[in-house]
Order: sequence, then C-alpha cells, then structure tokens
Amino acid sequence: MAFSEFRPLNEKSLIEYIKATPALSNKIGGKFDDLKIEEVGDGNLNFVYIVVGSDGSFVIKQALPYIRCIGESWPMTKERAYFEALTLKEHGRLSPEHVPEVYHFDRKMSLIGMRYLEPPHHILRKGLIGGNEYPHLAEHMSDYMAKTLFYTSLLYLTTTEHKRAVAEYCGNVEMCRLTEQVVFSDPYKVSQYNRWTAPYLDLDAEAVREDNILKLEVAGLKSKFCEKAQALIHGDLHTGSVMVTPDSTQVIDPEFAFYGPMGFDIGAFIGNLILAYYAQAGHADSANDRKSYKEWILKTIEDTWKFFDKKFVGLWDEHKDGPGEAYLPQIYNNPELQHLVQRSYMKDLLHDTLGFGAAKMIRRIVGVAHVEDFESIKVASKRAECEQQALRFAKQLLKERRRFESVGEVVAAIRQTES
Amino acid sequence: MAFSEFRPLNEKSLIEYIKATPALSNKIGGKFDDLKIEEVGDGNLNFVYIVVGSDGSFVIKQALPYIRCIGESWPMTKERAYFEALTLKEHGRLSPEHVPEVYHFDRKMSLIGMRYLEPPHHILRKGLIGGNEYPHLAEHMSDYMAKTLFYTSLLYLTTTEHKRAVAEYCGNVEMCRLTEQVVFSDPYKVSQYNRWTAPYLDLDAEAVREDNILKLEVAGLKSKFCEKAQALIHGDLHTGSVMVTPDSTQVIDPEFAFYGPMGFDIGAFIGNLILAYYAQAGHADSANDRKSYKEWILKTIEDTWKFFDKKFVGLWDEHKDGPGEAYLPQIYNNPELQHLVQRSYMKDLLHDTLGFGAAKMIRRIVGVAHVEDFESIKVASKRAECEQQALRFAKQLLKERRRFESVGEVVAAIRQTES
Repeated sequence: MAFSEFRPLNEKSLIEYIKATPALSNKIGGKFDDLKIEEVGDGNLNFVYIVVGSDGSFVIKQALPYIRCIGESWPMTKERAYFEALTLKEHGRLSPEHVPEVYHFDRKMSLIGMRYLEPPHHILRKGLIGGNEYPHLAEHMSDYMAKTLFYTSLLYLTTTEHKRAVAEYCGNVEMCRLTEQVVFSDPYKVSQYNRWTAPYLDLDAEAVREDNILKLEVAGLKSKFCEKAQALIHGDLHTGSVMVTPDSTQVIDPEFAFYGPMGFDIGAFIGNLILAYYAQAGHADSANDRKSYKEWILKTIEDTWKFFDKKFVGLWDEHKDGPGEAYLPQIYNNPELQHLVQRSYMKDLLHDTLGFGAAKMIRRIVGVAHVEDFESIKVASKRAECEQQALRFAKQLLKERRRFESVGEVVAAIRQTES
Repeated sequence: MAFSEFRPLNEKSLIEYIKATPALSNKIGGKFDDLKIEEVGDGNLNFVYIVVGSDGSFVIKQALPYIRCIGESWPMTKERAYFEALTLKEHGRLSPEHVPEVYHFDRKMSLIGMRYLEPPHHILRKGLIGGNEYPHLAEHMSDYMAKTLFYTSLLYLTTTEHKRAVAEYCGNVEMCRLTEQVVFSDPYKVSQYNRWTAPYLDLDAEAVREDNILKLEVAGLKSKFCEKAQALIHGDLHTGSVMVTPDSTQVIDPEFAFYGPMGFDIGAFIGNLILAYYAQAGHADSANDRKSYKEWILKTIEDTWKFFDKKFVGLWDEHKDGPGEAYLPQIYNNPELQHLVQRSYMKDLLHDTLGFGAAKMIRRIVGVAHVEDFESIKVASKRAECEQQALRFAKQLLKERRRFESVGEVVAAIRQTES
C-alpha cells in the first residue's frame, strides 16, 4: 500500500503506514504482533492515535481538511499539520523539557509522529477541574514561555532571521483567521456558532454585543493579533494544550502557531487559569470546598507571570550583547537605561497579556467553543453563576487592563470580585 | 548584445537595451537618431537615465548592488528594484494621479522603465528651499497617502490577502535593515557614518546619545517599524521622494516599501516639512524674509494631516461594508461606535506619525544622510542654529507626542519654539 497522496488513516491503514515508515516502526522495535492502537482525538480538530508496543510507543496525529468537532461543513486547511510540526521542532529546540519530541513528519499526509506522553500525563484542564495541584506548573510554563517567546523575538533574532520566519508563518493564515473569528469577532455579534448557558446568560451575551467600549478594546487587540509579528507564539495556549503530571509539564498542539503578539500566549494560559478559578464554586462539594485550591490557582497565576518576567528579563540580560537587534548594546549601554527599557517592555507585555487573556475568557463563555471547567458543572443555574462572575471580571480586565501595574494587583482584583 | 544576466548599463549599452525591449523602444516610436540620454541619478542609491526622443520619453532606473553615494563598500541588494516596481504598480493602481506609470520592469537587470516626469517637475525639497508654494500639495499628498495606506490595510483587505502581501514584502528586509540602522540606531550611538555641523552641534549630538528617555521612545518606534505590518508603506516618503509642479504631485522611489506602520510614511512627509520650516531662517535674505512662506509650510503641515484624516476616514466609511476584516460591520454597527473606533484609530495614527516624523528629523541632523534644506545654508553657524532649533523640537515631539490631540496643537508647538 502506497501513501503517495493524502488520505485519512484508520486503525488498519495506520499499521500499513507505520510498517512503511522506518522512523516509526523502529520506535516500536519493528514488532507489530502485540501493538495496541487507540484513537483518542478528543480535541476539536484532529485524529490522534496512541500506538503502544512492547518495545516502545508514539502518537500519530493526522489533520483532516475540516474541523473535526463541526464536520466537513467547516473546512480547515490540513497544512496546519506542517506549521504544528515546524513549531513543535522549533519550540522543542528552545524548551526541550516542555515540548514532546517529533519523530516523523509527513507533509503530504498532514501527519505527525511524536512522543507518547504516557500516563499519568493528563490534560491540565481536567486536573484543574479535579482540584489537583501541580507544584511545578508555574515554574515550567514560565520557563517554556520565556524561552520560546524570547528566542524567537527581535530581542534575540536579527531582523533578517525574524522576517524570514514571519514570512513562512504567514502561510498559516487560515488558522489565524479561525482565531480572528472565534476570539475577536463572533462573541461580539450575532453568530450561528455562539452559544451560552441560556436563559441565564441571555442578557449577558447581549450586553457583550452592545458594549461599545468593549468592542473598541477588542478591535485594538484584534489589530495587534493580525499585525504585530513579535515572536513565534503557540497560538492556542489554553489549559487543554498542556499535559501534566506532578513533575512534568508538556505543551502540545501548536497548530495555530505564527508570528504574533507574545501576550496572546501568556494571556491564553493565565486567562484559562482564571476561568478554572471561577469554575471551582461549581466543583465544590461537602468533602472539599475548594477554598484552598482556589488559593493555589491564584498563586499559580501570580507565580506564572512573576517567574516569566524574571526568566524573560534574565534571558534578555544574558543575551544583551547577542545577535538580537531590537536593543543594540551600543545604545542601551547603561544599567539604568537597560532597566528602564525592560520595565517599559514588560509593562506593555503585561497589558497585552491581560487584554488577550480577558478576550479568551469572554469567548469561552459566549462564543462557539466552551471549556470543560464550566461545561462539567451539570446544574445550569450554578454553571451560569460561575460564568457570570468570570465574564464580569473578564470585561473589567479587558477595559481597564492598562491600570494594572503588576500581576499582584490583578490577583487582588480577582479576590475583590468575591468579597 | 544579450542581457541574460545582470550588468550595469552605461549610456551606450542602454541604447542596445532599449532596442531589444519593445515596451521601451515603442515609447519613442522606434526612433534612435535624435535620442537624448542624460544620467541624472542625484539620489543616494541608483543610476537614473532620462531618455527623450522626438516621439516620446521615459526614465530608466537601475539599481546596483551597493549604495551609490557611499560606494561598493556598502553593499545593498539590487532586488530593491523588484520591490520598487511592485510598489509603483500597486500604489499607482490605487493613486494613479500621483504615481508615475511603469512601462517596463526587468528583474534580472534590476531595471525599471517608467514615465519621465518632464519639466517643470522638480524635486519638492528643492522647491521648499527656493521658497515656492504649491497650492495643491497638501490635497495631493493626503490623497496619495489616504488611498495607498487605506487600501493596503486590514480596513480594506481580508487577512488572507494581507498576510500574502506581508509575506512577499518580507523579502525587502535588506532595505528595512538600512532604515533600522540609519533612522533608529546610528543617531543614538557612536557610528562612523554619523555627522553633524561641528563643532556647533557636538554637544547636541552627544546629548542625543545620552538621553535615556529619547532612547526608550525610539526603541518603541523601532519595534513598531519591525513588527507592525499595518499597510504597504512607501518607506522613504521625504520631500526628496516627491516631484512637483504647481499642479502636479508625483511620488517616486518606493524602493524601501514594505508592510509597516502607516505613521512612518505620514511622519516622514510631515517631519521633512518641519525640517524645511526650520531651514527657512537660513534661506531668508533682504529680498524675502520667508515669514509668509513659513506660514504656508505650517498651513501645509496642518492641511496634510487634516485632509488625510478626512479622506482616510471617508474611505473607511465608504467601505465599511466591504471586504476589510478589521472592523466587521456586524460588530461596529452603530454610528456612535463607528465614530468612537475611528477617532481612537486616528489618534493612535497621529501619535505614530509624530513619533516617526520626529525620529526622521533627528536622523537628518545627527545621522549619516542630511537634507539639502540645511546643507544648502552655507554659513555653518547659521546652519547650526537652524538645526539646533529643529533638533530641539524633534526631541520634544518624540518624547511628548502622546499629549497632542490634534495637528493644530503640533503647529502651535512649532510656533512656540520661536516665540
């Protein structure tokens, strides 16, 4: 059986494919007798097979030319697999501890073979719903974000390298367009894809569509998303794109990657932690009121930004005489000025982070794709209450983000919404 | 004689080239006997030939792989001719009244054949030095800028079209790098290329290199220049890139074109008008104190922005239900909100314009490439006085640009520097 052109695999043809691909068959020691294959694509977009043999394992991810959770009625370029593989390799080079290794990529088949993140690895979002603490999460995620964002920005790259990479990732425009639609547009207008916990949030959804200041602010963020080629961002860095154990943190699924604003990644992660925070009331029961867990989430939000800030600025200091062309050492040549430009840069980045984080929260409550944090709260009135609190805070954050000087103030503002 | 690979032309080989190129020889009716050819490349970068026959005329511009005014020691991609031709065609399609027609482009030879802008067309900068008024200048330039910038932005383009064009123009990175160096870097550090009217401006040049706030602000502008792909900008829109008669305004030389921040173009034009303003004291004599001429320059600055604002917003209104994806009509669907987002957009654009304009002024006084407005003031002390005034205002503008709400306030601030 040949694989000279694209075709969707099934469990049977997948075995043929593996047999014909040494990079994969070698991973399982060429043994096919006891091979276990399981399709686990519970995401929205792709087919994912776990392949486990007695001598090894891997995951196969194949992109189909439409969005899986909606069907063939919403076509989506399968070229996204190319950008995902490219980014896994690039981010993996920069942060190997937190990105699974790519064993094989087949552009024609839109197929990636990569490390199987064996149990107890699980999706972070599920762990947050379960009330699990991850003591290294902030440390790991800040490390991943600091390295992938710093090293692909003009703080480290020459403008020649940067523009070449920007041009290549312009090819991932269809995925960018999907984000533009579902994050920055649909929630702010009547759209067939929008949904919310009706009837409880009917007025809230309408209020989002009729809030002029909110729509002014979201336009500014959309422009930044479309125009500001700051670094190679993951593009979809919510808590469902992170797999964890107590000791390991692995970032997966960068198929939305492109050169965009850094704050979109950091905001996605922090925004989804804030969603997890507001969902806790819906998961509390007599055995666990989740109060201390909510404190852990707040601490993780605060630490994520603080550690990120420290690591990012640390990389900047380390490479201030390096190839990066944004701040030439002959100009930014005194400690006072170096500190001044860094604090200005980080403040702008915090504001971007809060803006994008808020936009990502809003779209998860009144847009097409919701989060399990809320969806798993079965009592609709309870779910609605959690969502309303989160939505209220997100709107405030989006509009007033520029008045926050530190992440500590953000956490204090979250606390205030409950006092 | 064949032209199958790049070689620099001279007046003799140029004739062979024209004979071998129907698009050019047809323009002069195929008559070579009375052909007049003159090399007039008084710019910094290229060779330019005017070709005039009894039946027609054209201009030939050839890019060589180095910067003409410095020599082979400063190499520069001749591919710039490709981006110049591409932009002349694109901007010419959008604003045909103000961009000369391209008759022929030869990528291999880095050679453009285009309309000869016959006398009395002359370089605007020379006219400003001469004290000539151009009653339609603000009208024409605002028209050119409004159309070329609006129609290549996301206010009119889909993100698919925009990203495709952004990617293509990433190829003009070497020209961007030249701008980064001479506008945003060299003036703020010790550089072998910098010069100024010594000894008068020695302390001023040093003060620029040691002004932390100025260097903080210029870093922000450099980041915007490198990262913000807002529209297809000319990239070098000073008063030496504009040819004029009292009735005609023609924009030439877009070899620095790429997708960058709109304010870089508008700022280049307005910044160079402000330089012309401060140079007038050096051109005044007993016959003409230039006072009324300075008023005309101020009025032209004010009108250029005001007309630009009106035309740009007019195009936005006209196309608000068009293909542009930045502000979808289903979201920005009420007049109050439409007004709100437009005023916010134009205010940000004014601040970008003032910032880039100021940076362009500074670099013309303490950087490598100076302007004839000042250079033609023969008495060094007088020249220095004009330059110091301009530099002082530019620094103020760069640092305090965000406090200006209108171009009227900018003009008032210019007046204040002389009171």
